[in-house]
Amino acid sequence: MTPLTPPKAVEIVEVAPRDGFQSIRDPLPTADKQRCIQALIDAGITRMEIGSFVSPKAIPQMADTGELVAAFANRPGMRFSALVPNLKGAELALAQGVREVVYVVSVSESHNQSNVRRSVDESLADLARVVECLRQAGDACLRLDLGTSFDCPYEGRIAWTQVDAALDKALALCGDLELEVALCDTTGRATPYQVAEHFTRLRERHQRPSLRWAFHGHDTFGMGVANALFAIHHGATAVDAACGGLGGCPFAPGATGNTATEDLVYALQGGKVHTGIDLPLLLNAADLIAALPGGQTASHLREVPRERVS
Amino acid sequence: MTPLTPPKAVEIVEVAPRDGFQSIRDPLPTADKQRCIQALIDAGITRMEIGSFVSPKAIPQMADTGELVAAFANRPGMRFSALVPNLKGAELALAQGVREVVYVVSVSESHNQSNVRRSVDESLADLARVVECLRQAGDACLRLDLGTSFDCPYEGRIAWTQVDAALDKALALCGDLELEVALCDTTGRATPYQVAEHFTRLRERHQRPSLRWAFHGHDTFGMGVANALFAIHHGATAVDAACGGLGGCPFAPGATGNTATEDLVYALQGGKVHTGIDLPLLLNAADLIAALPGGQTASHLREVPRERVS
Repeated sequence: MTPLTPPKAVEIVEVAPRDGFQSIRDPLPTADKQRCIQALIDAGITRMEIGSFVSPKAIPQMADTGELVAAFANRPGMRFSALVPNLKGAELALAQGVREVVYVVSVSESHNQSNVRRSVDESLADLARVVECLRQAGDACLRLDLGTSFDCPYEGRIAWTQVDAALDKALALCGDLELEVALCDTTGRATPYQVAEHFTRLRERHQRPSLRWAFHGHDTFGMGVANALFAIHHGATAVDAACGGLGGCPFAPGATGNTATEDLVYALQGGKVHTGIDLPLLLNAADLIAALPGGQTASHLREVPRERVS
Repeated sequence: MTPLTPPKAVEIVEVAPRDGFQSIRDPLPTADKQRCIQALIDAGITRMEIGSFVSPKAIPQMADTGELVAAFANRPGMRFSALVPNLKGAELALAQGVREVVYVVSVSESHNQSNVRRSVDESLADLARVVECLRQAGDACLRLDLGTSFDCPYEGRIAWTQVDAALDKALALCGDLELEVALCDTTGRATPYQVAEHFTRLRERHQRPSLRWAFHGHDTFGMGVANALFAIHHGATAVDAACGGLGGCPFAPGATGNTATEDLVYALQGGKVHTGIDLPLLLNAADLIAALPGGQTASHLREVPRERVS
């Protein structure tokens, strides 16, 4: 039995400004978002999905993403990304100054249809154009969010062959582009040993130096922290989380929040894993986020007396 | 990086009838307890901490433990245990037909004082007498619950040297007696890599065939499932959990429920780990437990649409 030793460092990608704010029905005032984002930066967050470039009709909550990018993009040491569902979104993101584009495609047809209103093949065809666009931009990189990599709210458990089919095509399109692939447990239904097996298998299948792995999880089934740690042990160098456990997916019925950043940071801190994040300051940000009107948060750490969080 | 492979089987020790029922202020009617215990047995639970033999003045919630033992003790395939704080409790337990005595001693002085009203040394001195009593009984075995093995609600983080000191003494007293030692994260404050390191270290320090390891955790800090899985990977063959996430400790301020049995079983089932437990039936038991007056439950699985739990 090999002891589970902690890695030296893990990159936390804070997704509350995208996955979280999008889950609040009434769009938040931009100033409220800015306060939360600033608090997250103050806490030491260095990677953040700041919003998405999507149709403001479909998701009005994200309509001010350009404004947020403009307000924060030039912070030193910060790496902001924005989610895009198509070429148009990618072009907008790049034009606004975003240097990391998160292209989302779900492995399951029905979730991709409800999430980005097109077939998986259409999404992949557009990915080719996004890659071309990024190559021309030169200084931008790509993150591929592979939605429903474990389970789909409509189709149930997803076979690995389905993930393989989508990822094989996507990687062929990306060539040697600097790329991070996130396996997304959109519904929170994945379990730790499945996450372990999935990452192990995919990393053996796709070995290339320009490829990095990430995990995006939800805590709906109570597996959030365990899944993230198992992903990290099997090669994920970045993990998504949402401060306050804010989140969900308007197109994934029943999904609750992303794994709370503070819960995950607490788990990692216990192994002296470097995240660069200050937990007390992160909890201040979580308090701000929890106070947002209409938000549903789910954080264990926020419920614990503050002096015990160390 | 060694892939994390699931073990073939894990023993779940259901502690809701002890740790859980004890956390409900007004003692439950014995008949209500019996219904819940029967539902847990129906779900496939084979190890259960059915109650404790303690002063009914100190913990009136456990006054009917003898009655419960009498009602259930002879079920085939079931292994019931009862917690005892001293020799008198052990004698009562054995006289009532309990074949597995859970002797509890906390590593920290202040928690041992508040929990069992004596010093650690006094508890250990009494353990010698309990061991003698078990030897005379012949067909009974011992489980040692090492409370506050990671953290104490009064003293904070516990140094490993403190755990070593208590465990060294306890093991010397037990000789070659069949023994299971549970490291108890009484407050839920332990983190997964700490659990891993703790088990690794102690298993190296104490190698003997008659010794087995267990983990008792709470989900207060959101680490419940992850801590249990890390404990299992590092040699724990049994894990405590409470159906419905019912629990807490009247003498550990701020501690919420034990890790929910259904959350843990779900995690293990995803790795095809044998527990012998039927998840839908376990959720029926969780519903019964959640409906008990005065109980506080915390279960992720119960919140998920039932058809998705598979």
